[in-house]
Amino acid sequence: MNSDYYVVIMAGGVGVRFWPVSKSDRPKQFIDILGTGKSLIQQTFERFSKFCPAENIYVVTNLAYRDLVAEQLPQLKSDQILCEPYRKNTAPCIAYANYKIRKRNPAATVVVAPSDHVVLKEAVFLAALREAAAAAARNPWLVTLGIKPSYPNTGYGYIQFDDRAADAAHPQLKKVKLFTEKPEYEMARSFVESGEFLWNAGIFIWSLPAVMAAFKTYLPEIDELFAAYADLLDTPREAEGVEKVYVSCRSISIDYGVMEKADNVYVVAGDFGWSDVGSWNSLYELLPKNAEGNAVVGAEPMTYESKGNLVRVPADKIVVLQGLEDCIVVEDNGVLLVCKRTEEQRIRQFVEDVAREKGERYV
Amino acid sequence: MNSDYYVVIMAGGVGVRFWPVSKSDRPKQFIDILGTGKSLIQQTFERFSKFCPAENIYVVTNLAYRDLVAEQLPQLKSDQILCEPYRKNTAPCIAYANYKIRKRNPAATVVVAPSDHVVLKEAVFLAALREAAAAAARNPWLVTLGIKPSYPNTGYGYIQFDDRAADAAHPQLKKVKLFTEKPEYEMARSFVESGEFLWNAGIFIWSLPAVMAAFKTYLPEIDELFAAYADLLDTPREAEGVEKVYVSCRSISIDYGVMEKADNVYVVAGDFGWSDVGSWNSLYELLPKNAEGNAVVGAEPMTYESKGNLVRVPADKIVVLQGLEDCIVVEDNGVLLVCKRTEEQRIRQFVEDVAREKGERYV
Repeated sequence: MNSDYYVVIMAGGVGVRFWPVSKSDRPKQFIDILGTGKSLIQQTFERFSKFCPAENIYVVTNLAYRDLVAEQLPQLKSDQILCEPYRKNTAPCIAYANYKIRKRNPAATVVVAPSDHVVLKEAVFLAALREAAAAAARNPWLVTLGIKPSYPNTGYGYIQFDDRAADAAHPQLKKVKLFTEKPEYEMARSFVESGEFLWNAGIFIWSLPAVMAAFKTYLPEIDELFAAYADLLDTPREAEGVEKVYVSCRSISIDYGVMEKADNVYVVAGDFGWSDVGSWNSLYELLPKNAEGNAVVGAEPMTYESKGNLVRVPADKIVVLQGLEDCIVVEDNGVLLVCKRTEEQRIRQFVEDVAREKGERYV
Repeated sequence: MNSDYYVVIMAGGVGVRFWPVSKSDRPKQFIDILGTGKSLIQQTFERFSKFCPAENIYVVTNLAYRDLVAEQLPQLKSDQILCEPYRKNTAPCIAYANYKIRKRNPAATVVVAPSDHVVLKEAVFLAALREAAAAAARNPWLVTLGIKPSYPNTGYGYIQFDDRAADAAHPQLKKVKLFTEKPEYEMARSFVESGEFLWNAGIFIWSLPAVMAAFKTYLPEIDELFAAYADLLDTPREAEGVEKVYVSCRSISIDYGVMEKADNVYVVAGDFGWSDVGSWNSLYELLPKNAEGNAVVGAEPMTYESKGNLVRVPADKIVVLQGLEDCIVVEDNGVLLVCKRTEEQRIRQFVEDVAREKGERYV
């Protein structure tokens, strides 16, 4: 494996869309959402362990989740866990990792990826990643992975690309014309029909010089903040320096701050069996279904006249369902949720209602 | 309290209609089915403690439940718990108690009652019981309590009575014309419309001489069996004697064996808020309902667009229900059941399926 290759796993996310399984003290990336026996961050770490040496993998997370990361990824040395004191979106997170990695290896080629996504076709994914990394190592490009869209999903950002290859040496890399935010449905449909758009998976590949140059150009004030405290990194005063940076730093995404503005952005398209599993319904779509269209994580329920349900309960539970259709049935953390799949967007409301009624400890 | 008054609580029943809350190792009478903090047998014991001295209350149960009875009713001395080695229906159970009580008090007036029924109007019930006991103490009558029927229930036996009073001294006691088994619906409806029929609650009141005479007349072979081993009662060889009796004794109910045949049967009618709570639906009918028609035992669920449900989960559970109508939602003993209320008769099938699939320990 190429020892100049590095990976930065972003694991600071919060969210209650998988409530009651995910809660604010244990968000989605730390959950075994697929029932594989491994949490999403553990799966992500294992996937990238096939791309670069494990000691080159960094996890950036919120201070609150440091212990969870250390517990779930005991392979990590403590200096591979970068802790953010405040949530400032992805650009500061990436800048922090850049400065940290630069101390070890200024010639690094870095992959940045979320910790809470699913990739079912790992071999295809790794091949595309290696293609992208090889190109990024040799060129001052900002490379991203794009997912061939299978339907007009309005929950993802899209990437428009130019179908001509970037250059002869890298036929899989296409020049990016446009990054866009989550579109309305009609727009998403025209994106998909055009064949020129890909889903933005939030996975980026670049050399350290290329991405640091981009920060200097597009987010100079963030770069200057990190530069000012760079000497404190890898010293006992690192946390103090990071606190000073984050308290002043603005919150901005790498997409909006850099990718939408830069003109040296390239994409490798592929069908990786990728999903951000953003909600119970997207998990339902992802999972295999039985003859009645029920998808199961954990204990297999006994079902009677029950179709189209997603059932996720602890593995030692006995569940009998009769006459239940198109529902989410989830039990975890002392909470039972039964909810129509079409109403999953109301889970946030349910969580707030429960918090008000029963107290924060359940949320 | 009259120290000649005795009560025999029959607590040998089995059944899975309240599965997964009731199981074969903990049937309904040992369950806090109403969520009052007390099991049905504890409520039954407390109710009869207001009628006679606690030391005059006997519980007849299956050997398998002796420890459960002792645990739930620590007030009982061990010789107040009569253990049946085999299930032989109610007549042998009553004969056993008769012979046992006769050793202490041949002049006893005895109430026999199931352990797993609900009585909401306790004062009315106790008044009727005292009326019946006073009459039974003075007359060689077999007295029963009858419930004024509120609708044509096909799950109960019925008692037809003669509206004229038994005699001037006991205006509340009516002569019974007929005991009948559970009727078909049309028959039940005509029973209710006639005004001449009452529900048979399985509660009997008689003097020891009266009931023992009835056994001698109508079930002489059972009486002879108990008579043959009566000397062993209250000795270290009691269990041995009872085993000998029960192994030969036929299985027969007191209704069929005695009440349907005797001509000295009287009834005290009343509205006691009585129910045998024979199933989840009858519990649903019994419980108070909120504005959406949901009935709850244990934790109060948060409900959204959910009507007509019976929800019974442990008190420390958070439950969120959305879009669920007319269902039974029950969790206990590591089992979650969600089932349309109209399909509750299939619970027996579910239990058998689970037993086959997962092993007996869940049933």
